[in-house]
Amino acid sequence: DSKLKVFSLNSNPELAKEIADNIGVDLGECTVTSFSDGEIQINIEESIRGCDVYVVQSTCEPVNQHIMELLIMIDALKRASARTINIVMPYYGYARQDRKARAREPITAKLVADLLETAGASRVLMLDLHAPQIQGFFNLPIDHLVGVPILSDYFEEKNFEDVVIVSPDHGGVTRARKMADRLKAPIAIIDKRRPRPNVSEVMNIVGNIEGKTAILIDDIIDTAGTITLAANALVENGAKDVYACCTHPVLSGPAIERIDNSKIKELVVTNTIPLGEEKTSDKITELSVAGLISEAIIRVHERQSISILFD
Amino acid sequence: DSKLKVFSLNSNPELAKEIADNIGVDLGECTVTSFSDGEIQINIEESIRGCDVYVVQSTCEPVNQHIMELLIMIDALKRASARTINIVMPYYGYARQDRKARAREPITAKLVADLLETAGASRVLMLDLHAPQIQGFFNLPIDHLVGVPILSDYFEEKNFEDVVIVSPDHGGVTRARKMADRLKAPIAIIDKRRPRPNVSEVMNIVGNIEGKTAILIDDIIDTAGTITLAANALVENGAKDVYACCTHPVLSGPAIERIDNSKIKELVVTNTIPLGEEKTSDKITELSVAGLISEAIIRVHERQSISILFD
Ligand SMILES: Nc1ncnc2c1ncn2[C@@H]1O[C@H](COP(=O)(O)O)[C@@H](O)[C@H]1O
Ligand SMILES: Nc1ncnc2c1ncn2[C@@H]1O[C@H](COP(=O)(O)O)[C@@H](O)[C@H]1O
Repeated sequence: DSKLKVFSLNSNPELAKEIADNIGVDLGECTVTSFSDGEIQINIEESIRGCDVYVVQSTCEPVNQHIMELLIMIDALKRASARTINIVMPYYGYARQDRKARAREPITAKLVADLLETAGASRVLMLDLHAPQIQGFFNLPIDHLVGVPILSDYFEEKNFEDVVIVSPDHGGVTRARKMADRLKAPIAIIDKRRPRPNVSEVMNIVGNIEGKTAILIDDIIDTAGTITLAANALVENGAKDVYACCTHPVLSGPAIERIDNSKIKELVVTNTIPLGEEKTSDKITELSVAGLISEAIIRVHERQSISILFD
Repeated sequence: DSKLKVFSLNSNPELAKEIADNIGVDLGECTVTSFSDGEIQINIEESIRGCDVYVVQSTCEPVNQHIMELLIMIDALKRASARTINIVMPYYGYARQDRKARAREPITAKLVADLLETAGASRVLMLDLHAPQIQGFFNLPIDHLVGVPILSDYFEEKNFEDVVIVSPDHGGVTRARKMADRLKAPIAIIDKRRPRPNVSEVMNIVGNIEGKTAILIDDIIDTAGTITLAANALVENGAKDVYACCTHPVLSGPAIERIDNSKIKELVVTNTIPLGEEKTSDKITELSVAGLISEAIIRVHERQSISILFD
């Protein structure tokens, strides 16, 4: 059978190492650096001829650098006769640019899909796409894993008494429902609306949260504006405690400051995007998706269904 | 007839303005900024439906950012129903990654060509490609302009007495020959070679340079190692004065320091890559390619041959 190799690029070296360890292989040898003028230089240091190659790269910040690294790596692997080039992209950048919200906007999520195909990707494995429709932007097989079980399991162990799962906006209700099913809890929704233009938003809460431990769930937390306002509204409306969780901790700009100053007791995230040295807070707990991803890779490589991973 | 519009991205705003002025149009209104997490946000602020759009962008440093800006802009223009999307790329980044020099290397110059086509470019206008073969990487029409006339005209006005045009390596002899033809001068070649592995290179000069004013010509000057060593070798071997010129002043890393400390009297470059605030030296003279490019755009738009621009 053809050989499985795992390579890491620069976005997520620790996660990649954990995945390779779980699978029981060494990380492929490869240096990804820059020439003096900033052009990316990739040297693959071992033969990958005829191999099934898995490349781990999230397109998190610096997103354009990480996209180009990935495309150039795919090109190099293709020219070096890899049998299949499997992209493991725990976080799919530009996912929020998935439609024309205004005239003359790009649809960069579709562009990136086309770029990956053009470079020569065979298959893409992703986690919690911002919109599941992005799968349809590809003509390649997509394996779409979900983070809800990992996040739910963590909260399950806390044995809270009276829990409610809260979606911070209308778009996330399906995700909240999934978590609520696992924790056998009810849901609530933050129903933000702007009564008139140029009037500030009203945070209305649909559902019963009084005296309960509320768990906010989102896919991405970026500047943390939405989630911290939601947390504070929950406390003001009588929630006992507020926890928050998400799969993808983008945490850009004022995010850490906002979280530290908010009513959120603990923020639980996964390592699809590494927190690094700058994005630290005593409130943040990081869970690893390495187990989930490595199991998926093993099943894909052994031609088994991965749907079992969603139960 | 369909309307001509010129848009600038972030690499070369001044050159783009000069081109638009020459053509007699206003620059298209468009903002190219970043979201908090570094993802590029493009807003085209005027209708371009049915127009022939020219987008000015060099893929110089930060090269990956500039490539992604360009691809996203092409996507937005395509979705906004531009009639044709013409890329004006004065400097083509990654041009030196145009072949597999070692095993398992990418061919990024070809990858970038494919990415531009995939995004939806209709045509690309470029200046002094590092290797003319890169034109064949595209299935699109390429207009390939040359900088030699601009550089030669500048030196012509100096009325030097006894001139020799020098190629700093074997790869650039054709370019040196073109300049020599225009200046009615002979050529010489720096014939670098390494006698044995791990022995330093010997700079041999083929051709007569003694007592002459030498003009070194290259397409790209990056870290300026080659050109400054060549200049010093010319002086040591009896050249009267040494001038240098190139189309694309990449000038990364130690370039400015090396030029300042070298025997080069004056370095003449064009504005395909802006020098910016960091790449300044009293020795550098910058010539504009705006006239050449705007003439080419007008001729393309009026369906006239551009071969006249090469004479
Ligand atoms: N990186 C980003 N940061 C902030 N907003 C974004 C980003 N990318 C896209 N958007 C905007 O977010 C909106 C889509 O977000 P959503 O409604 O959550 O799907 C669109 O209006 C986009 O213009
Ligand atoms: N951005 C860059 N900076 C320095 N060297 C490069 C760069 N891109 C490619 N190269 C190397 O330059 C060589 C090709 O240069 P050349 O022989 O001048 O065409 C190849 O060996 C490349 O690996």
